[in-house]
Amino acid sequence: MSNLRINPDRLLHDFNALAQIGSTGDGGVHRPALSENHLAARRWLRQRILDSGLEFQQDAAGNHSAILRSPNPSARTLLLGSHLDSVPHGGRYDGALGVLAALEVVRTIRDANLELPVHLEAIDFTDEEGTLVGLLGSRALTGALTPEELANPRGGSQALRDGLSRAGLADPLRAVRAPESLAGFLEVHIEQGNRLNAGVADIGIVTALVGIGSFQLAFTGRADHAGTTPMHARRDAGLAAAEMIVRAQGLAVRAFPDCVINFGQAQFSPGAYNIVPERAELALEFRAPSQPELDALETALLDLAQTTAASLDISLAYTKQACVAPAPCAPQVQQAFAAACDDLGLIHIPLLSGAGHDTQALAAVCPAGMIFIPSTGGSHNPNEFAEWEACVNGANVLLGAVLKLEGEIGSMIYQS
Amino acid sequence: MSNLRINPDRLLHDFNALAQIGSTGDGGVHRPALSENHLAARRWLRQRILDSGLEFQQDAAGNHSAILRSPNPSARTLLLGSHLDSVPHGGRYDGALGVLAALEVVRTIRDANLELPVHLEAIDFTDEEGTLVGLLGSRALTGALTPEELANPRGGSQALRDGLSRAGLADPLRAVRAPESLAGFLEVHIEQGNRLNAGVADIGIVTALVGIGSFQLAFTGRADHAGTTPMHARRDAGLAAAEMIVRAQGLAVRAFPDCVINFGQAQFSPGAYNIVPERAELALEFRAPSQPELDALETALLDLAQTTAASLDISLAYTKQACVAPAPCAPQVQQAFAAACDDLGLIHIPLLSGAGHDTQALAAVCPAGMIFIPSTGGSHNPNEFAEWEACVNGANVLLGAVLKLEGEIGSMIYQS
Repeated sequence: MSNLRINPDRLLHDFNALAQIGSTGDGGVHRPALSENHLAARRWLRQRILDSGLEFQQDAAGNHSAILRSPNPSARTLLLGSHLDSVPHGGRYDGALGVLAALEVVRTIRDANLELPVHLEAIDFTDEEGTLVGLLGSRALTGALTPEELANPRGGSQALRDGLSRAGLADPLRAVRAPESLAGFLEVHIEQGNRLNAGVADIGIVTALVGIGSFQLAFTGRADHAGTTPMHARRDAGLAAAEMIVRAQGLAVRAFPDCVINFGQAQFSPGAYNIVPERAELALEFRAPSQPELDALETALLDLAQTTAASLDISLAYTKQACVAPAPCAPQVQQAFAAACDDLGLIHIPLLSGAGHDTQALAAVCPAGMIFIPSTGGSHNPNEFAEWEACVNGANVLLGAVLKLEGEIGSMIYQS
Repeated sequence: MSNLRINPDRLLHDFNALAQIGSTGDGGVHRPALSENHLAARRWLRQRILDSGLEFQQDAAGNHSAILRSPNPSARTLLLGSHLDSVPHGGRYDGALGVLAALEVVRTIRDANLELPVHLEAIDFTDEEGTLVGLLGSRALTGALTPEELANPRGGSQALRDGLSRAGLADPLRAVRAPESLAGFLEVHIEQGNRLNAGVADIGIVTALVGIGSFQLAFTGRADHAGTTPMHARRDAGLAAAEMIVRAQGLAVRAFPDCVINFGQAQFSPGAYNIVPERAELALEFRAPSQPELDALETALLDLAQTTAASLDISLAYTKQACVAPAPCAPQVQQAFAAACDDLGLIHIPLLSGAGHDTQALAAVCPAGMIFIPSTGGSHNPNEFAEWEACVNGANVLLGAVLKLEGEIGSMIYQS
């Protein structure tokens, strides 16, 4: 069946329809997890699944699935998918393409009347972007999500409660599945950097995903009148936060060249022109390709925050947010992707993923892997873009990999 | 009448009652201008004025007044007062004491059946703290407020519209009074620093008030995925803002030792852990004792913001907010305060005011001056505190100065 191909027109129709939901009018979409826009996208997906004649399923974490059953009722499940949620004012490819490609692959296999030794499930995971809790849906499914994280979500407890309530979800932890029920997980995603452009390759086969740590840092000084308090007599929490951002930049560039850091949020309070900030909160995220580097970077950043705060007579508190361990991709899955590319005449190269993806959560419990297609315009913004031909290539490589796993490459996955 | 004194019990009763309105439960009050809490305080003041049998007046800027008429109907008006609004989660003395001391002085003079050659008016000015527009009420009264400022208020247009609507105010500009109708303005206020403590003096007589400038700075870079975008390839608006805060601190301390600066607000957007900030907004305020220093500091800060932004490939936009010129206090008023202190046996020293006050607005159109009483605990926070005896001293010095201005010292004010 190496000549089987997905239906590009059906995929394009879906892609364009989905990009309208939560559209920001500039090519982007605003679909933060469990927002009204996101839930509208999911209602649309549910209808598309039902229209396709596939079995629809929603689990306790809100994950939406289209299922094609194997003739063997006790078969394990091969998951294909990604996520429909976006960062605030994000792009229309990130996540969405992966879900639609997965659905298209399942439809193509169903249309071809192929019988597989696994149940095939196209899945849309909740909150991959971590608006509320990082990788909420995929980590709920694998059992990595904890009650502690749900009690102290990085997006705030109220926002999580509101989101779950809007979606009608009571307890995401109940979405957990037995690892032995899972045959594997495959994902298609835009590359988001510039590593595949200028004809470098058609497909990037991910070898591993970086680990991610995140903290909320809270600097506390003293609120003072900004006119009557001399500069030297202040305990300015905002100054400490600013020093931290500047110094951490230097630390990362100098001592951790393979890592990245980001301060995505800053908030000074009480927040008036004429009051020296008493409190300054920063959202810190950092990524490293291996666990030792991730641990060393975390230690160095927290030490720096302490030193910076102390030098300005400021106190520091920090709250650890969801973190993700670095994850290698399964060799068999990488081989299946490579073989599928070869069949299609597509040039492929191995790549490290600097971003977290649902693959990261799944890799902890089953053979998992993902491919990147070339994209431009950065990512997490409305300008992210992929040529349509590249999107179709990605979906066909996903289809090809599913079929390759039936043969020798996948024997460990499908039969074990 | 140099033996006339205010009624400390009546003043204390008022002070304690007012401190309950918008109380934050920790000694402070939360009465941002035209908020429900602030309007509740004003309703209370109106009732106290009416209960005292004084004439009540509210002008188009919401300023509340208690008026004691001179027998001479064409007399000019001597204003005494301050403000009831507070910064967010501020203290219970700042402004409130000045309004209540003014009301108490008017009541004391009325009770003593004194006839003055001026109308005496205790006034509570709107938004001295600049939550919406800096010195809104006093600058509306003097004619300094402009339509442009109302169209672009530093607290935001929606907040100003909402506040004016809550207070039932249509056009604050109509509060303007003819300068020739004003005999002068006198204010009592806590000192807010530590310059009168440890027995240094009982009263500070303000010689001049610093000038204040403020800008909203907006740094714009590019939103990028915080995992896939290398550190060197980013245009991080948050980093530019942090660099600005750190460098401006150095500039102020090094090159402008008589000045102060403050960054009271910071906001990164889109505001997610995993997105490099596209936009970072800072609220910048700076103060200088003279116009040349104020101008030089403004130029240096804006140059620094430009240089900092350009060095990181970030664009900069800035919006000038309300500014206040440095204001010398009237010599006759300073003399009247000094003579009153001498009569009361209170030690007084001259002081520069690092804070803006309503006196600053009034000084532009009539003889104006103010005194400070000792206070501790900083200011613009719930810990600000003044001994009750110091508060009574302040009110008695205000009373004494009003009476002194009747004599030789005030001849220019009362008769000209």
